[in-house]
Amino acid sequence: MRRYSSIPFAKVRITGAFWSERLETVLSTTIPSQHAQLAKYNVLDSLKLPKPVPPLTFQPHADGFSTQIFWDSDVGKWIEAAAYALPHRRDPRIEAQIEAIIDDLEKAQEPDGYVNCWYLEREPQNRWTNLRDNHELYNLGHLLEGAVAYLRATGRDRLMGIMERAFDHVAQVFGRNPGQKRGYCGHPEVELALIKAWHATGQRKYLNLATYFVDERGASPHYFDIERDARGEAPGKYGQGTYEYSQSHLPVRDQTKVVGHAVRAMYLYTAMADLAAEHSDDSLKRACEVLWRDVTTTRMYVTGGFGPSARNEGFTQDYDLPNDTAYAETCASCAMVFWAARMLNLDLDGHYADLMELALYNNALAGLSREGDTYFYDNKLESDGSHHRWDWHPCPCCTMNVARLVASVGGYAFGLGENEVAVHLYGGAETTVTLSGGAVHIAETSAYPWDGAIRVAVTPDQPQTFTLSLRIPAWCAHPAARIGGAALPVIAERGYLRITREWQAGDVVELDLPMQAERLWPHPEIKADAGRVALRRGPLVYCLEERDQAAPLHRLRLPRHAALTNAFRPDLLGGIAVILAEGIANREPSQALYRTAPPAEAPAPIMAVPYYIWCNRGPNPMLVWLRE
Amino acid sequence: MRRYSSIPFAKVRITGAFWSERLETVLSTTIPSQHAQLAKYNVLDSLKLPKPVPPLTFQPHADGFSTQIFWDSDVGKWIEAAAYALPHRRDPRIEAQIEAIIDDLEKAQEPDGYVNCWYLEREPQNRWTNLRDNHELYNLGHLLEGAVAYLRATGRDRLMGIMERAFDHVAQVFGRNPGQKRGYCGHPEVELALIKAWHATGQRKYLNLATYFVDERGASPHYFDIERDARGEAPGKYGQGTYEYSQSHLPVRDQTKVVGHAVRAMYLYTAMADLAAEHSDDSLKRACEVLWRDVTTTRMYVTGGFGPSARNEGFTQDYDLPNDTAYAETCASCAMVFWAARMLNLDLDGHYADLMELALYNNALAGLSREGDTYFYDNKLESDGSHHRWDWHPCPCCTMNVARLVASVGGYAFGLGENEVAVHLYGGAETTVTLSGGAVHIAETSAYPWDGAIRVAVTPDQPQTFTLSLRIPAWCAHPAARIGGAALPVIAERGYLRITREWQAGDVVELDLPMQAERLWPHPEIKADAGRVALRRGPLVYCLEERDQAAPLHRLRLPRHAALTNAFRPDLLGGIAVILAEGIANREPSQALYRTAPPAEAPAPIMAVPYYIWCNRGPNPMLVWLRE
Repeated sequence: MRRYSSIPFAKVRITGAFWSERLETVLSTTIPSQHAQLAKYNVLDSLKLPKPVPPLTFQPHADGFSTQIFWDSDVGKWIEAAAYALPHRRDPRIEAQIEAIIDDLEKAQEPDGYVNCWYLEREPQNRWTNLRDNHELYNLGHLLEGAVAYLRATGRDRLMGIMERAFDHVAQVFGRNPGQKRGYCGHPEVELALIKAWHATGQRKYLNLATYFVDERGASPHYFDIERDARGEAPGKYGQGTYEYSQSHLPVRDQTKVVGHAVRAMYLYTAMADLAAEHSDDSLKRACEVLWRDVTTTRMYVTGGFGPSARNEGFTQDYDLPNDTAYAETCASCAMVFWAARMLNLDLDGHYADLMELALYNNALAGLSREGDTYFYDNKLESDGSHHRWDWHPCPCCTMNVARLVASVGGYAFGLGENEVAVHLYGGAETTVTLSGGAVHIAETSAYPWDGAIRVAVTPDQPQTFTLSLRIPAWCAHPAARIGGAALPVIAERGYLRITREWQAGDVVELDLPMQAERLWPHPEIKADAGRVALRRGPLVYCLEERDQAAPLHRLRLPRHAALTNAFRPDLLGGIAVILAEGIANREPSQALYRTAPPAEAPAPIMAVPYYIWCNRGPNPMLVWLRE
Repeated sequence: MRRYSSIPFAKVRITGAFWSERLETVLSTTIPSQHAQLAKYNVLDSLKLPKPVPPLTFQPHADGFSTQIFWDSDVGKWIEAAAYALPHRRDPRIEAQIEAIIDDLEKAQEPDGYVNCWYLEREPQNRWTNLRDNHELYNLGHLLEGAVAYLRATGRDRLMGIMERAFDHVAQVFGRNPGQKRGYCGHPEVELALIKAWHATGQRKYLNLATYFVDERGASPHYFDIERDARGEAPGKYGQGTYEYSQSHLPVRDQTKVVGHAVRAMYLYTAMADLAAEHSDDSLKRACEVLWRDVTTTRMYVTGGFGPSARNEGFTQDYDLPNDTAYAETCASCAMVFWAARMLNLDLDGHYADLMELALYNNALAGLSREGDTYFYDNKLESDGSHHRWDWHPCPCCTMNVARLVASVGGYAFGLGENEVAVHLYGGAETTVTLSGGAVHIAETSAYPWDGAIRVAVTPDQPQTFTLSLRIPAWCAHPAARIGGAALPVIAERGYLRITREWQAGDVVELDLPMQAERLWPHPEIKADAGRVALRRGPLVYCLEERDQAAPLHRLRLPRHAALTNAFRPDLLGGIAVILAEGIANREPSQALYRTAPPAEAPAPIMAVPYYIWCNRGPNPMLVWLRE
């Protein structure tokens, strides 16, 4: 059923200015500073085992809080992010840091393959007794993703070896055979990691384990009940109340509503889509489609953010999308990119690529500062100026997630089908693929996301016939294309312009995706956005920062018929396109709190900047949804 | 400096339908049911001393939580509310219940006069060691108000005797003489109660004590610091952080911003206004005027609610007036009525009466259900349907506060000046006053607040010349008057039409205050109300309950030029005037969460009901500020 596969990050070279700059920042600032933070907060030290059990603390920004149950995952994600960045530019210092971590993991690993720094340090007797809460498989999943990335980036397989021993142990402990535990992780993640390992190694045992974990999820009797009873824990003690929190309330094929912890949800759906492709499993594919439709039509922020509530770090009710308290965790949008990429491999539908692009360029990218060393965990759509990026977080999941996403962005650019190359994301990237007629070099160049003029140069080793499929984003109303200088009618087939012909060296497709500044209106059931309008240009959703306006944000409105224009401002934030409009501000000088006359209004120019880049000029009130 | 005095409740008879019905409900339902709740939750039992110390609990709606530090005040307020209702209709059962409480208080009182059920039961050795937090003087204040009300209603002075002994003790403990504590209560209340006692008894010792408490407040060194050090408590332990919470951060004459706990603030300002009048103290009057201007121009809800935040039950920043999380405690609006009445005695300015009326008819009255036995503690201006009245509260202050306000509403109707009678509030009330030329009976009749046609019959025992001052509310754009059938030009002098003439029996003034349904717009700095509009008719602010609308509240808007009409609906909620308008609802059937076309709109009739009566027909979303 899998019609397309992604082209791995290591085979794609980023050439465009936008992502090159981000990638360089990640490599030169983010990765080293994250290593320093992991060292400062004792995360790296936690891998050095055995050691005496330190006291428990959990203080943000304290100089040394003790091991957390999820720390292994942070190390895994850091290795992964670093590994993604290395093909861009090798860095011996970073590679030595990775090797040192691998040394520690090698020493920490038990003879039977088990490795988990929390349990080995604190309660080795209790391993595998609380899968619901304690992240053991989640941690291994992230370490495995790190191992696969490092293998792909460098060919070095020592970490992969540690992981193979660990997962051989896992496969012994969990499964449906007599004496095995019928468990799965409360925080999905290991499933998608195992599929990556299967792709990287070709060893089916990884695929089998992933399949077991996904299929077993939500089965009755419920494993988390069995495990809880075995621990002697009272049923009412579970803080989350419902297994919806971990998407284990039902078998995955019976799930129709996107619920619970948003990152868990997205990671699970990613693995479900992967497995649907691996096994040509229609029931799993349908479940993914139903969940996709649910989340994108009822529970998604305009910025591609997911999960409004801090309480469960996740979903609540349909259309409950508050702006000033939005959680919209950076990790959840990163995970949306992962899921969308898998859906796109199942089905070349531009809708998936549109959402992948939306989550990537907006909510996810906002998670990382321009300087590359501070982070948003939650991404509000309205702030009174008190919401800022952190330089670290007691649960630093988002920091490495956005780093690994940016560093691997090339891996989402292209898709490889049967005698077909698809371009999903634009922005300047090149790759070489091997089709039936031999190798073909594809080079996409553009000033995306600032400009929609795209040039795709196709260079086969020898002339050959295949299909080049170019995504036509839904945001683009009037796309145009030329090939060899001649106009090509743009008839998009589910969001892709598919050009089948005999290609030869020197062939160039020019695709023009005009980017208009435009308004977005909300579904009328979204209470928080009623009477408001958002701004978009191309893939970017915009926001207003108060410092750019002539009046405080709450006094501004954008009348429905005010013209929107845009301008590229090379002087601003490294060069960005801004949206300009003639707004209206309340100018009422009266002191009366309430009055029988409406407030006086006066014209006020409005300038909007891309959402992802807000809060890079100091504390500042911000607003995505403007009053009309 | 006092130019007017209120005419006590016991000398005013309520005749109008609106308040008669409320008063009857309070007498027949509220007072008895509150007595039953005070018994059920052991509040009455706490007065029976000595007894063994029970364990501490503090559970809402538990059957028997233990003594709270503020319980004496609840008993005092219940006596006060009951006493206010008795002139309306005597009730031997209620009077017997009051007498039984007085029996208990008499037994509980220590030989030195001290009485406080918390301290006598739990920690008699610690009395007067924590005035900042523990409400001892506040409790005595409420008991004193109850004693004064019961004395005025029935002439019985046994409770007043207990209180006199208690306050003789207080006057020994507190003051500026050697050996005395220079303390005052963290929760102002006793000050205004002492002034009532002074008025009721003519004993200057009450006035002197009130004056000391107000003047000493906020003096350096700070008494709460001294007291805290004496307790050996760390300075950082004070949960509220700042003495703004209790308005003791500065001497009262230096206070210019309304801050802290809203009820404490309003009670303090009430006493300040009283004392300004008693002592012709310009500095105190000016402080009151500055604070009045501050709260009414920056920190007041359109419904006459005060204090947006649950955290400190009080004030935050200027224009911070969120609707769905509004605290706007019922008690604070009751206290605003008290304060406004005092300001009106200092200065016959209709602005004070307008605000008194606003707080009374809207935020305060909303605190009591139509049936008279459930209560709002906090009064939101927007609810998703989950905000309901309680049948009791672990801190039941608001329940008795709204009861005593309703039962004593007659006491706010008239003011007596030098050869002058002022009518502040309309709604049907009569009184007899003695002026220089003898007794005059004043009878005001109207169907207020539903209709502004008011008839004031003046019946002097013998013809005499004096001034009748009739309030012309600021909400009324086109008032008209006739006297003896002849038109009288309405030239309002600071909100009052002052008619000086020789009055004789049979004289009637007809005052017409046309009530138009109209819009109110917010100050542009109130973020929560930006782009919204509220509805008002006469003294009543209106709201929308979802059950009355054709579309969910969040889909509705009221265009600026839609005509407003009103209709009296005798069938609805006992008979109310509703406001009707042709609104517009979003009707968009598309499933897309965000779209480049604005939502389709369709006409939708809107019906608004008075805010005070919302939530009397079961759970229901509600909205005061409508989108335009």
